[in-house]
Amino acid sequence: MTPYKNLETRFEELHQLGHAQAMLSWDEAVMMPPGGGEARGEALAALAALAHRTLTASEVGDLLDTAEGSAAQLNEWQRANVRAMRRMHIRAVALPEALVRAMQIAATRCQQTWRVARAANDWNAVAGPLAEVLTLAREEAAALGNALKLEPYDALLDAYEEGTRAADVARLFEDLKGFLPNFVDRVLERQGVPLPLPGPFPLERQRNLGEEMMRTLGFDFEHGRLNVSHHPFCGGVPDDTRITTRYSEDNFLESLMAVLHETGHALYQQGLPADWRRQPVGDCLGAAVHESQSLFVEMQVARGRAFMAFAAPHIRHHLDGRQGDEAWSADNLHAHAIGVRRSYIRVDADELTYPLHIVLRFELEQALIAGELAVADIPDAWNDRMMRYLGLSTEGNLKDGCMQDVHWFSGLFGYFPTYTLGALMAAQWFAAASARDPNLEAQIAGGEFAPLVGWLRREIHGRGQLKTARALLTEATGEALDLRYFKAHLESRYLGN
Amino acid sequence: MTPYKNLETRFEELHQLGHAQAMLSWDEAVMMPPGGGEARGEALAALAALAHRTLTASEVGDLLDTAEGSAAQLNEWQRANVRAMRRMHIRAVALPEALVRAMQIAATRCQQTWRVARAANDWNAVAGPLAEVLTLAREEAAALGNALKLEPYDALLDAYEEGTRAADVARLFEDLKGFLPNFVDRVLERQGVPLPLPGPFPLERQRNLGEEMMRTLGFDFEHGRLNVSHHPFCGGVPDDTRITTRYSEDNFLESLMAVLHETGHALYQQGLPADWRRQPVGDCLGAAVHESQSLFVEMQVARGRAFMAFAAPHIRHHLDGRQGDEAWSADNLHAHAIGVRRSYIRVDADELTYPLHIVLRFELEQALIAGELAVADIPDAWNDRMMRYLGLSTEGNLKDGCMQDVHWFSGLFGYFPTYTLGALMAAQWFAAASARDPNLEAQIAGGEFAPLVGWLRREIHGRGQLKTARALLTEATGEALDLRYFKAHLESRYLGN
Repeated sequence: MTPYKNLETRFEELHQLGHAQAMLSWDEAVMMPPGGGEARGEALAALAALAHRTLTASEVGDLLDTAEGSAAQLNEWQRANVRAMRRMHIRAVALPEALVRAMQIAATRCQQTWRVARAANDWNAVAGPLAEVLTLAREEAAALGNALKLEPYDALLDAYEEGTRAADVARLFEDLKGFLPNFVDRVLERQGVPLPLPGPFPLERQRNLGEEMMRTLGFDFEHGRLNVSHHPFCGGVPDDTRITTRYSEDNFLESLMAVLHETGHALYQQGLPADWRRQPVGDCLGAAVHESQSLFVEMQVARGRAFMAFAAPHIRHHLDGRQGDEAWSADNLHAHAIGVRRSYIRVDADELTYPLHIVLRFELEQALIAGELAVADIPDAWNDRMMRYLGLSTEGNLKDGCMQDVHWFSGLFGYFPTYTLGALMAAQWFAAASARDPNLEAQIAGGEFAPLVGWLRREIHGRGQLKTARALLTEATGEALDLRYFKAHLESRYLGN
Repeated sequence: MTPYKNLETRFEELHQLGHAQAMLSWDEAVMMPPGGGEARGEALAALAALAHRTLTASEVGDLLDTAEGSAAQLNEWQRANVRAMRRMHIRAVALPEALVRAMQIAATRCQQTWRVARAANDWNAVAGPLAEVLTLAREEAAALGNALKLEPYDALLDAYEEGTRAADVARLFEDLKGFLPNFVDRVLERQGVPLPLPGPFPLERQRNLGEEMMRTLGFDFEHGRLNVSHHPFCGGVPDDTRITTRYSEDNFLESLMAVLHETGHALYQQGLPADWRRQPVGDCLGAAVHESQSLFVEMQVARGRAFMAFAAPHIRHHLDGRQGDEAWSADNLHAHAIGVRRSYIRVDADELTYPLHIVLRFELEQALIAGELAVADIPDAWNDRMMRYLGLSTEGNLKDGCMQDVHWFSGLFGYFPTYTLGALMAAQWFAAASARDPNLEAQIAGGEFAPLVGWLRREIHGRGQLKTARALLTEATGEALDLRYFKAHLESRYLGN
């Protein structure tokens, strides 16, 4: 067996452990009875330890050295595969096992405390556990930074968006900070009140509608399914992609948009290169690209006027909206889909205010990792920025402020920017797709999505990790990430420019 | 770390792999979209290979030697744990990896062929793949026999019912063969025709009924759930026990009895010793004991007159059976529950004819493993015995004859006897429970199951693999497995003696 083949065998085993981890995590969120949590946590930790051991075996480093040394004998995909393996290996060996274990324990405890503390709006209860998690996260960032020769925060960010640095993000976000607050004002001034859509909407009908939309967009039900969970997500594996939503009888649009968002993630997953599914090069690029695919479908396509022209009769059909009733017209449904409102909760935010939530988190988590902001000072710093960016005070309402997101409490730092990087990318991908095909809007209005999804497949999904996200974006759109596409999208949609 | 603790660490990892295997298998049967099968098969094979590697590591043998050498320092549970580990280790190292892999490939191919061939009643299509599986199964049996110093078939049987030999089974089965055919005649002569129970019975109502019965019997829904699958089964892990049933709108009793059968399995699993859940000693005893627990609940309890007295009003309540209607009386429901009929299909058979199906399979599979029966001769041998034991010909109807069960086609030999060993044990356990508590029938009729389940917990469930099944049976019932309890049960139930 050549060193390269030996590596493929080892990483295929990692892939299969990943299959188990993905399915057990899906099951935990969708199926598991409450009492199963402890045993499931142990099983997932054991699988993670096994994967870590497989990835950090000393032979892997030697095999990678040899495979890199004879890269000329490998084809383009194999070379990219070795590159992806090396990246995983470096990150894994950078972290001492004791630190990984300590973080796992601290994060589990902190999350559990957070769940109770958030409900009670009790920051003091969770500040201690969070400080412990932050200390370990800073150690992780330092260790990774050391291994990758990057600044600590950059080393965290690099896991989700390879090659992108905090300085790049800060440049984009400065622009957003300058542009969005005033833009939101203008939109709120112009924005009318759409006709109400009176429920109730039976869940079964909402599910049928969601599944029809998924099918129309190209979701392959032979290799996937739709279920219910507390928070919508996309999980599973390419051959068995599981998405979830949640239903409210009063509001079908929120659930439908969650389905469409997750369908964007799912199309990416189902479209990964079939020949490389068991290898790192066949896996998705980082979180930012993944989010760009979900926002492509939700924000660029589904909340657009053309999509609503297509969807309105289907929505009426499934939900018994009466023909001729203005409330169920494409225009009124579209007005609902693009409603803007300054609000406290990131996950409920519209695409205009959402980036401001992200800018806030990005600024605070950079300061936290740099040691420039203490846990005790988070509430004030949060309130201060919420006032500045969104004009809302979270003083005394920390459960809807700095306690709303699980990320930091579970040790996840450096992830938040990917939501907005994904939004910017999505606008740029969509602009490229539109420029390439002048009939795109007409196709969408006609419910014909195969050409658009085919383009995503060719340019993004089917290429796995063959290139970095930055390279893919440049190849498909002709330039590096540029904020002007997102701005143009917002101006067109919200100001009709 | 002592050698014993080192072993515990390794076997805990095996347990966690087992958790993943159990859940992925449940998901495959209950949730997985059809196109996910290939990837799932690969993931399960990879987990099995990992488990095999963990179990057969050369250090494990050395550690077991040392732990056995200093067994005096271990307590009773730890010693039994080492014993269980040794048993797993011997069986695992006995099989060369190439043989395991060859069987896996051959069995997968044979099962896939079987599924199509059975539907087409086409024996010739599957005879070749089955011959290949049989050759490998005979190699397995020889290798295991060699390692365990047992006859090949005994070595297979020992996996499911430790210490029981084919000769023991043959003695019991000879008795059954002599007794049952004539007994069935007598019952069929006496048996009346119960009043029909006219459906349709909406699935949702059947599910509510099943869940209520599960709850009443002590199934813990905090640590388990009920779903639908093609064949009912009990899966998952002790802290998260998943049972399934299937529903027909015409016949609620079949589904309800499947629920109660699987609840028997589930009570065993949920009742395993909490302190030893991650170790082999905390696991269930073999398949025969497991089946004895399902048949205890289904055959000894649920199909009995006392249980039907309790259940009848609940059944009426959930299924809208009218008060006062004789069809919904406890007596009539009971008559349905104990109906006897000579039939082709094992899984549909009543408790009287079922053992004859098993005797047939036991005799044929012994001959197959011994090399005394060729695959080509199975159809005739099957038909011959079906005529003798049940008076039914399967000539030309192989899909309802020798092609009905997946076992052999998936390489499973030596398992069939456990169904009937379980039935005999169940009768013996129940007789002991009745002898101990004269109020047992009254408790069952009153829907009070805690004392009975508590006894099962103490005598069986909570003891894991601390003793062999034979030892448990002797301790709880005062004697070794004896057919007379099963006979007495049948005579009492079907002839009123």
